[in-house]
Amino acid sequence: MSEINKKSPQKLRVVIVGAGFGGIACARELLGKPEVDVTIVDRHSYHLFSPLLYQVSTAGLPDDDIAYPVRAAVRGAHYQRGEAIDVDATGKQLVLLDGKRLAYDALVLAVGTEGNDFGIPGVAENALQMKSLAEAREIRKALLGTYEEVAAGHLTPEALHTVVIGGGPTGVELAGAVAELQRGLAREFSEIAKEAGVELVEAGPRLLPSFSEKSSSTALRDLKQLGVNVFTGVGVTKVGPQEVLLSDGRVLPAGVIIWAAGVAAPKVWSKLGETAAGNRLMVDDTLYLKDGIWVIGDASFLRDEAGRPLPQVAPVAMQGGRHVAKQILRMRDGLERERFRYKDKGQMATIGRRRAVVELPNGLKLTGTPAWLAWLLLHVAYLAGGRNRLSVVADWAWNYIAWGVGPPRTLTD
Amino acid sequence: MSEINKKSPQKLRVVIVGAGFGGIACARELLGKPEVDVTIVDRHSYHLFSPLLYQVSTAGLPDDDIAYPVRAAVRGAHYQRGEAIDVDATGKQLVLLDGKRLAYDALVLAVGTEGNDFGIPGVAENALQMKSLAEAREIRKALLGTYEEVAAGHLTPEALHTVVIGGGPTGVELAGAVAELQRGLAREFSEIAKEAGVELVEAGPRLLPSFSEKSSSTALRDLKQLGVNVFTGVGVTKVGPQEVLLSDGRVLPAGVIIWAAGVAAPKVWSKLGETAAGNRLMVDDTLYLKDGIWVIGDASFLRDEAGRPLPQVAPVAMQGGRHVAKQILRMRDGLERERFRYKDKGQMATIGRRRAVVELPNGLKLTGTPAWLAWLLLHVAYLAGGRNRLSVVADWAWNYIAWGVGPPRTLTD
Repeated sequence: MSEINKKSPQKLRVVIVGAGFGGIACARELLGKPEVDVTIVDRHSYHLFSPLLYQVSTAGLPDDDIAYPVRAAVRGAHYQRGEAIDVDATGKQLVLLDGKRLAYDALVLAVGTEGNDFGIPGVAENALQMKSLAEAREIRKALLGTYEEVAAGHLTPEALHTVVIGGGPTGVELAGAVAELQRGLAREFSEIAKEAGVELVEAGPRLLPSFSEKSSSTALRDLKQLGVNVFTGVGVTKVGPQEVLLSDGRVLPAGVIIWAAGVAAPKVWSKLGETAAGNRLMVDDTLYLKDGIWVIGDASFLRDEAGRPLPQVAPVAMQGGRHVAKQILRMRDGLERERFRYKDKGQMATIGRRRAVVELPNGLKLTGTPAWLAWLLLHVAYLAGGRNRLSVVADWAWNYIAWGVGPPRTLTD
Repeated sequence: MSEINKKSPQKLRVVIVGAGFGGIACARELLGKPEVDVTIVDRHSYHLFSPLLYQVSTAGLPDDDIAYPVRAAVRGAHYQRGEAIDVDATGKQLVLLDGKRLAYDALVLAVGTEGNDFGIPGVAENALQMKSLAEAREIRKALLGTYEEVAAGHLTPEALHTVVIGGGPTGVELAGAVAELQRGLAREFSEIAKEAGVELVEAGPRLLPSFSEKSSSTALRDLKQLGVNVFTGVGVTKVGPQEVLLSDGRVLPAGVIIWAAGVAAPKVWSKLGETAAGNRLMVDDTLYLKDGIWVIGDASFLRDEAGRPLPQVAPVAMQGGRHVAKQILRMRDGLERERFRYKDKGQMATIGRRRAVVELPNGLKLTGTPAWLAWLLLHVAYLAGGRNRLSVVADWAWNYIAWGVGPPRTLTD
């Protein structure tokens, strides 16, 4: 029950929970400001570049490439490894799982989301999630492992099918990458490779529901060209150990089942206030909750001026983080809090090599190679750290230019 | 109990156990030869580039970079994942752990070695080995994890000491790399970094006993410059959970203890014949054991013309693999087996950035940057696969040219 950041009581103590895009942006905005002491809490000592998790899952990148040390990302802030589980609002302390307490003047919850199965039976037991590096490695191990098991005769060839549930950007990117991985493995596993397949299931009427209909159809066409079987307008009623049951009665056999259909904020924070769907904490239009607590990124719920809920994407989290940093300083200085205005940066999704859809806020839409190049550049630019950039560029150079010259990475243990 | 490689009974069935340097070289030499059917058995589906294991252990390279799919390394051969545990010499079948049997006309044991603790108490429980990728990841996790634990106050600063037991090339390279990792972490962990240290313990009178005395002293000087505390002529009597007891009564406290002092061939094969120290199977001067069984690489014991035991190094394994491949074909063709003559390629060890010792068979010795560059080039050249080469070059470019610009990789889970 000891308070572990007692030093410099004259400083404004800001504690940030979560080293994702929002938490890091908030911390960086505060660093170097006079009389501010920033502590960032996360169970992992690295910032995860989650937009590329699907490439780790599909053996395109080593896990190292998308992890960057929190300490190096926010030099000058304190990093506290641990899992935050509660807030003592009267004592103004954040409580960690190991009993440690962190006193704060301002608390920023940037806790993100985890997988949400909507109560569909069998998802928790039989489907893989893709929210952490450990889960990405599990997916990769499963994808490559089934080839070994089928080759050894321990599994039937149906296990070479992968079902991806959820047709948002994550599901679309993952399904495309699995299809390309299967192509890459065809040479090493020539005797069984023709049995492989990918099924993508989306309950809504079309893929990429947040994109325009035109981008949806482009994505659908691109995925079909890659050999992905796309099911839209059909829900998942149950997930078994080796099969997915659809609402129209069809059964999709699969060796690997991946859940990309929905997320929710960690339930542990729901008690702090009113929540919208997916446990998102409803904040005021300055991203303030109450009692010195702010919520940013995927875990918060706020509507824009037009009444549309802000999307759960990295730009919202980053802009929110910077906004809250400024408001914390304004409050200290006795100024009013300002309204958070999200500046839409557009959206993009990639569908395998040289295929992507990009939608800019000015209405400009890109597809094909130009969209894919824009996607590549943006992701390299936003990756943290020169080493990771260099390493990802080297890997992509190999993956995309020397495609087919060598085998995919197949390390599974 | 089913025999799984029945097809093409008219072909000569060669089964190779182990996808290390020896096994792969043997398989490659046999591929494309008429009427030969090659199967390579390994518990891992990848060939491990073990000379760089110490760089994975010390966060210099991602694990992916030193693993290459066996199937791609020996296209045209069959790969069988599994653990070989026995030979049915009369039935001429190799027995796997899962009960499968592989019929052979010629069997090549290229099974390598595992850690050997010489019966020193506590080594098995408290020291980490570095023979597999899983073990390398364990070391990395331990090295980086102790920093987190000390920073969080869960461990005393003494845990920042790493003791490496064994002053051969592996121990020397590892100790140097740990010292450099500690330097690399000094910026992120500025409050505790000065407590870190590396101790290298060698029971013999000098480091690198297989090298010249001059190279030994160079290595010693280089390690000292890196801040490594070297203990020679002193044995280890016991390894505790957080300390190493030396034969002169001194106690070295440590958070991480790594065993690099000795190896032995897997005991399971000892019953096949007479063994030398370290369970090495004694073969005739053609590398033949008996009954169509050959033993190559670290698991075999043979003296050269001058009566010196062949060293347990990759070139011996590779040359042995190619030699045995040729002899298998000669036996089939009714020709006599030929004597194996190892062509000495010299030896090298690297001691951190821009430091290495190289000894060529013609007596030429290199040290410092030239030796280190020779080491770099040779290792890139021998790495399997363009992707791994490119990726390692990119990582090394960052590690060695941009040294200090960014933090070391710190992914630990």
